[in-house]
Amino acid sequence: MTRKHRVVILGGGFGGVYVARYLERLRRKDEIEILLVNKENHFVFLPMLPEVISGTIGILDVVSPLRRLLPGTDLHVREVESIDLEAQTITTSTGFHPHPHVLAWDHLVFALGTVTDFRGLRGLPEHAFPFKNLTDALNLRNHVIRTLEEAAIEVHDVPLRRRLLTFVVAGGGFSGVEVAAELNDFVRHVARSYSRIDPSEIRVVLLHSQARILPEMDESLALFAQRILAERGVDLRLNARLAAATGDDAILADGSHIPCKTLVSTVPASPHPLVESLKLPKTRNGRLQVGTNRRIDRWSNVWALGDCAAVPALQEGLAPPTAQHAVRQAEVLAANIIASARGGQVSTFSFKGLGKMGSLGRRSAVAQILGIKLYGFVAWFLWRTIYLLKMPGWGRRLKVAISWTLDLFLPPELVQLPLRSSVGVAQEHFEPGEEVFHQGDIGDRIYIVMSGRAEVVHEAGNRVRVLATLGKGEYFGEMALLRSTTRTATVRCVEPMDVLSLPKKEFNLLSSNLPEIRSSFERTSEERRASTQAAG
Amino acid sequence: MTRKHRVVILGGGFGGVYVARYLERLRRKDEIEILLVNKENHFVFLPMLPEVISGTIGILDVVSPLRRLLPGTDLHVREVESIDLEAQTITTSTGFHPHPHVLAWDHLVFALGTVTDFRGLRGLPEHAFPFKNLTDALNLRNHVIRTLEEAAIEVHDVPLRRRLLTFVVAGGGFSGVEVAAELNDFVRHVARSYSRIDPSEIRVVLLHSQARILPEMDESLALFAQRILAERGVDLRLNARLAAATGDDAILADGSHIPCKTLVSTVPASPHPLVESLKLPKTRNGRLQVGTNRRIDRWSNVWALGDCAAVPALQEGLAPPTAQHAVRQAEVLAANIIASARGGQVSTFSFKGLGKMGSLGRRSAVAQILGIKLYGFVAWFLWRTIYLLKMPGWGRRLKVAISWTLDLFLPPELVQLPLRSSVGVAQEHFEPGEEVFHQGDIGDRIYIVMSGRAEVVHEAGNRVRVLATLGKGEYFGEMALLRSTTRTATVRCVEPMDVLSLPKKEFNLLSSNLPEIRSSFERTSEERRASTQAAG
Repeated sequence: MTRKHRVVILGGGFGGVYVARYLERLRRKDEIEILLVNKENHFVFLPMLPEVISGTIGILDVVSPLRRLLPGTDLHVREVESIDLEAQTITTSTGFHPHPHVLAWDHLVFALGTVTDFRGLRGLPEHAFPFKNLTDALNLRNHVIRTLEEAAIEVHDVPLRRRLLTFVVAGGGFSGVEVAAELNDFVRHVARSYSRIDPSEIRVVLLHSQARILPEMDESLALFAQRILAERGVDLRLNARLAAATGDDAILADGSHIPCKTLVSTVPASPHPLVESLKLPKTRNGRLQVGTNRRIDRWSNVWALGDCAAVPALQEGLAPPTAQHAVRQAEVLAANIIASARGGQVSTFSFKGLGKMGSLGRRSAVAQILGIKLYGFVAWFLWRTIYLLKMPGWGRRLKVAISWTLDLFLPPELVQLPLRSSVGVAQEHFEPGEEVFHQGDIGDRIYIVMSGRAEVVHEAGNRVRVLATLGKGEYFGEMALLRSTTRTATVRCVEPMDVLSLPKKEFNLLSSNLPEIRSSFERTSEERRASTQAAG
Repeated sequence: MTRKHRVVILGGGFGGVYVARYLERLRRKDEIEILLVNKENHFVFLPMLPEVISGTIGILDVVSPLRRLLPGTDLHVREVESIDLEAQTITTSTGFHPHPHVLAWDHLVFALGTVTDFRGLRGLPEHAFPFKNLTDALNLRNHVIRTLEEAAIEVHDVPLRRRLLTFVVAGGGFSGVEVAAELNDFVRHVARSYSRIDPSEIRVVLLHSQARILPEMDESLALFAQRILAERGVDLRLNARLAAATGDDAILADGSHIPCKTLVSTVPASPHPLVESLKLPKTRNGRLQVGTNRRIDRWSNVWALGDCAAVPALQEGLAPPTAQHAVRQAEVLAANIIASARGGQVSTFSFKGLGKMGSLGRRSAVAQILGIKLYGFVAWFLWRTIYLLKMPGWGRRLKVAISWTLDLFLPPELVQLPLRSSVGVAQEHFEPGEEVFHQGDIGDRIYIVMSGRAEVVHEAGNRVRVLATLGKGEYFGEMALLRSTTRTATVRCVEPMDVLSLPKKEFNLLSSNLPEIRSSFERTSEERRASTQAAG
């Protein structure tokens, strides 16, 4: 008897799940063992993710437990920390006890997809919401409901209230358009339950860097989509590129600011950090270069598919990063792994997409299927039907169908799903002119400057004096915390600044237990108090 | 025209919501303005909370948006920070901007319920899961799924695997019994999807400090419940009181340890910290003392009801802390506020409970209604029917009824709901003999001793040497973090110890931006490295 081949699949998206499915179907039990490594125990049905924002379908219905989907596959729910291609092993992160796990493989499949990578975009890592997975969708939903609740309280602070009621989505591809459409429908609908919110103050803005949205689609469909979105109140900003963000503004490349407390960015999609760290042939944008057989050059047993791979398409160029293509690639890849395990020839296969669809929210969509263009309700009905049939498992299909039916006559869910509130140490970004806090505010956190500059300004009657300038490695805000008072001065950014901020609770825990920190903070605080009094 | 009276209700549980409902119904529009302050924008239907663990009903179905329930009430979603009874104001916490909000009231209603307060119980605040609200239920559900995933990975570490598969619930009242029953059903059912988990290793333990569970009920019903739970595999430990906890064990009053990674405690219920902080007449266990008119002595316009109040019952003693009583108290209270606003007489009214019910999971329950005792399926069917009819809103009732129907033939949900993973600074408790980490482990966090003692032990071949003893204010674990290596020694607790722990990421952020912290840590680390080498 020959030894079983162990296939390790990295990633539980469309690519990874369908490779495992096809392998389960095609293998003989004694020849191949399948192990799927994913940091979550579920598969997310991405095309329906935007519906989580409005809660149209049950929050758990958009995801499927991997163990039920893949009964013949061993699941390992951890993050992958490193890959050793020579030794043919991977190391996964630690669990309850800090021991690493090393797993050996005979075949390795990369199906890691892409990540939304805000690095290098000023303020985006700190202040923009990505929209890639279920956590992102839930965080966004909770945040949006929180802004509505706050807008209902902050009735007297007009600029703040406007910011709270402005929602900006960057990226006019499928994902950005669907998010903007859902967000717009949801906010406008639920705002009716808030007697203190004036619906005319709600703004949903869609930013797109090109002259029209949905570049993947035919122009007439894109123009139809633009018209529908505009009719429903979405403010379309074409040829507008998001350049930076702060906690108070979205900043465009032309320097203009959109005051807002909610900024979602569906771009840019970057390779997974793990793919980035490996010395393997990659395209310019970091996708793994594979042949039409889905195998990575030079390696006879390393494969890749889906969004993390650059798979040659039928006519020319590369296969687009869609579920449809990942699933078809998975079929070829699984067959090739089995052929290779049996010592046979691997085959090549290319696939032409069947079509593209994008939802525009409330009973409207655009679709381009087998060359036919569809608009409005017909496209929307098709969109729902096709995706419902593509969902894995009858139980889930039934639940989604019921949710959709109920949605016809029940109002959208307005419940905030309580996520753990502790955020601990946070990073924030400020642009020149912005205030970190204002004299008289309540002191709720301390700040440490990582880069950039700020000035400390003290007001007494009509006298305004700059007390100090702060730069890298300096901290501020500790006075109000140590003395439990309000802020004794205003801190205003003068050069683009990144800060670490530590909430009161964490600061108190740390400073009361690490004597050297406390005494250092107290010394500085004492010096500053003296200088404020001199200034006053 | 007289000025409108403003009634401010604190708390959105059964008591607060029903006071607002009755006020909406009884008032003339121009006489009373209702403001409800609650830290969440939803009402939790507590009797069904345990079903969230298994996902039998949709996670959002157990909660209702307060704005939809109370269309005539103004909702203020913030935490209450302080109350000034003389000035007749309350101050709520800060929102996006650090400004407090001060709200004036003519009538104030306390409906804050109780909180699970682990203070004074060694290790419980750090390591036990409370079960009071939706966040608690979701956290528990996610944690339980995580222990199953980890048990499927840690197949070779037998003690750890057993800990991962042991689930302890403390408290044998209604709440504890329902949680234990749901948890037991859920874990045993979903474990079938894990080929690497041996079902016989699963243990669900219910601890109760008295000789029988369900002290609120008749003995025969309690004994029936005990029999059903035991038959379904729950390990009942009577006359057993939980005394302390660590990350690895539940520790009983008699000193015995139950190794486990999941500990839920539904006791003790303490007054809300806000109630505790006020100088108002209270009972020995901290409940607000009110008359049969629900008014607090000496104050003509301060009222209390529900679990935070000690309301005289019909025959003798106090009304029990149940939804049924809170709702009936709300009716009297609302009528009295209106009478008092109109300058009329307030009335008194007492109410005798109609009955009590407790679910035992899978199609079984116990109930005692109008003196009749019911067991098993009949009681369970009644339980479902009564609670379904008591849920607010037809839409939600429909959804729950559908979920229950689907549950008859679909397997329970196994999806982990991703909550934000960052936990920042955490507190942990250790008991003598326990290891914080072991030499050779991966260094993933740094620890600061808040109280207690530990020793640092170094092993080299057969030589085991104690290098140092650590006490309050000292830190350890920084060496592996600063040098990115594994732990160079073992740290073991010698006196009950509380520590602060800071994950690698937060530690790196802080130490790389606060030069004084970094140099202090590096100095200590250098000294320790020298002493370890001397020891080796």
